Amino acid sequence: MRLAIDAMGGDYAPEQIVKGTLEAALDSSQVTFQLYGDEKQISQILGEQKPENIEIHHTEDVITGDDDPVRAVRRKREASLVVAAHAVKNGEADGLLSCGNTGALVASGILIVGRMTGIDRPALMATLPAIGSTRSSIQYMDAGANSDAKPLNVYQHAVLGDFYAREILGIDHPTLALLNNGTEENKGSKLLRESYAMISEDESLNFIGNMEARDILSGVADVIVADGFTGNAVLKSMEGTASSIMKLLKESVNDGGVMPKVGAYLLKDTLKEMMKSLNSEEIGGALIFGLKAPVMKAHGSSKAKAVNNALKQLEGIVASDMFSRIEEKFSITQ
Amino acid sequence: MRLAIDAMGGDYAPEQIVKGTLEAALDSSQVTFQLYGDEKQISQILGEQKPENIEIHHTEDVITGDDDPVRAVRRKREASLVVAAHAVKNGEADGLLSCGNTGALVASGILIVGRMTGIDRPALMATLPAIGSTRSSIQYMDAGANSDAKPLNVYQHAVLGDFYAREILGIDHPTLALLNNGTEENKGSKLLRESYAMISEDESLNFIGNMEARDILSGVADVIVADGFTGNAVLKSMEGTASSIMKLLKESVNDGGVMPKVGAYLLKDTLKEMMKSLNSEEIGGALIFGLKAPVMKAHGSSKAKAVNNALKQLEGIVASDMFSRIEEKFSITQ
Repeated sequence: MRLAIDAMGGDYAPEQIVKGTLEAALDSSQVTFQLYGDEKQISQILGEQKPENIEIHHTEDVITGDDDPVRAVRRKREASLVVAAHAVKNGEADGLLSCGNTGALVASGILIVGRMTGIDRPALMATLPAIGSTRSSIQYMDAGANSDAKPLNVYQHAVLGDFYAREILGIDHPTLALLNNGTEENKGSKLLRESYAMISEDESLNFIGNMEARDILSGVADVIVADGFTGNAVLKSMEGTASSIMKLLKESVNDGGVMPKVGAYLLKDTLKEMMKSLNSEEIGGALIFGLKAPVMKAHGSSKAKAVNNALKQLEGIVASDMFSRIEEKFSITQ
Repeated sequence: MRLAIDAMGGDYAPEQIVKGTLEAALDSSQVTFQLYGDEKQISQILGEQKPENIEIHHTEDVITGDDDPVRAVRRKREASLVVAAHAVKNGEADGLLSCGNTGALVASGILIVGRMTGIDRPALMATLPAIGSTRSSIQYMDAGANSDAKPLNVYQHAVLGDFYAREILGIDHPTLALLNNGTEENKGSKLLRESYAMISEDESLNFIGNMEARDILSGVADVIVADGFTGNAVLKSMEGTASSIMKLLKESVNDGGVMPKVGAYLLKDTLKEMMKSLNSEEIGGALIFGLKAPVMKAHGSSKAKAVNNALKQLEGIVASDMFSRIEEKFSITQ
């Protein structure tokens, strides 16, 4: 198995990307890790310790967070991400990871790697923690690959999420819910009502109906499907709320007397543990799902550990051979 | 001033609605409070203590949370909410409060009270806390009155929010941000891009551009405007995240040893204070803004204190005479 890594994308690129890849390479000696980026910088970070299963593929250019995604992918032909995506397209690599510009990664996926047969638009699928539930995690999609989704896109993403829960997570009959602004069937926007109708017509899905954003983390379903615009806004608001609460707690402790300070000290490890379970970094990357090959996005602020975790997840997906089976499913149903 | 109250709407109706109204009536002797609902039940709750400035208006029917909003408002002509809305329409009351079915309240507002001249659709405006900012609060709209907003609706809601911040909160040049899934001008769905264009063309607004959902509680702007579908989903996800974090904290404390338990005990008051500032109950109701008269929605789970707070907010809005001035503004600009 060969995995392509965009070494130049992300807030801490290339250093933390290279270090995370090094960790992964030492753990998985049977996998080849291809680092795409500035050879000089990458070599310097690796130093003497470069294992045999790491390859450096020199590239001349970089796509930044400010670049317009589609234009950058079309014009910056020598960018690390673009060259890495071509390696996947040409069968020289089996999967791709980047911590850089999400839009550019989605665009590289669509324009270079290519869409899966039967899927109109890929989705960004994130893994969220399930709190106070017997579920270990929730697959949440589309977390933001499509700003203007159509009902057909939402339906196809439901099918993809269901497939992932069965094939990769081994859940027998995964439950699926639609993120809407009310639980009744007739609730929501035209887009959501039409998506509901399409999903409920597919009897192969274990569709439990609409759900509201306040119940996402309670783990009401194995797979939550949302239109990409709402999915993105809701995910960001969960992140923001968690960090605002921690800020508020710090302020309250600082403004309080000795008792709250001692209390906070005694609770320190508990709070740290808690924030960790809400931190997507710790869990892994988000899959850009619906392409011909697995393409994964890890958070822009990923450090070595998060890069390593995302690479392990990508390795599991490639190893499962899920992609050939899902293409089969879609070509049969069409 | 006369305020109409739907005594039968809400999880704790009529008891807590009547008790909250009683508190408000004792505080504001110059205001008449009209309770619409079952006379027998209301009289029983008030008992001997009924002050002169409380009137009971007997009604025969109730709209429940399960009722289809528009149909219920059209057919249940004797429902407490419908009769109360007619009192506002006929000039027998100056404002309306309900803790019941939000959709039915919006429908009563549009179908009975009537829309403000120049406003196509009202918005639900909520007040949120600003954490770690010098702002005391944020006006957030549309929190869910419109599932399928058009750019014109979003623009008009921006104008309403700006007006409220100036006239009621006394903010000189309130900043206004648009909730989108990226900060750049060209980001987001077609709806959001077109809304951005309309808002930025109005030079009377202090528009600071797009913002992301993760920054809502940080207090980046005085007024945040969102399309109603996204605004609703994001608000619910903030509520859900806050309550999931508290659940997680409790679990961690229970599973931990003695130290975290002592810590949590010492932090108890701080945590309670903190959750209070995130609780919309404590702040007041949400205004259904864009109607001919002030109509306010308090949370379904409101108890007496929340009802009293919402009535005080409603009283302030009626007293400001804001509504006649805003109608003037819109009839000039049209």
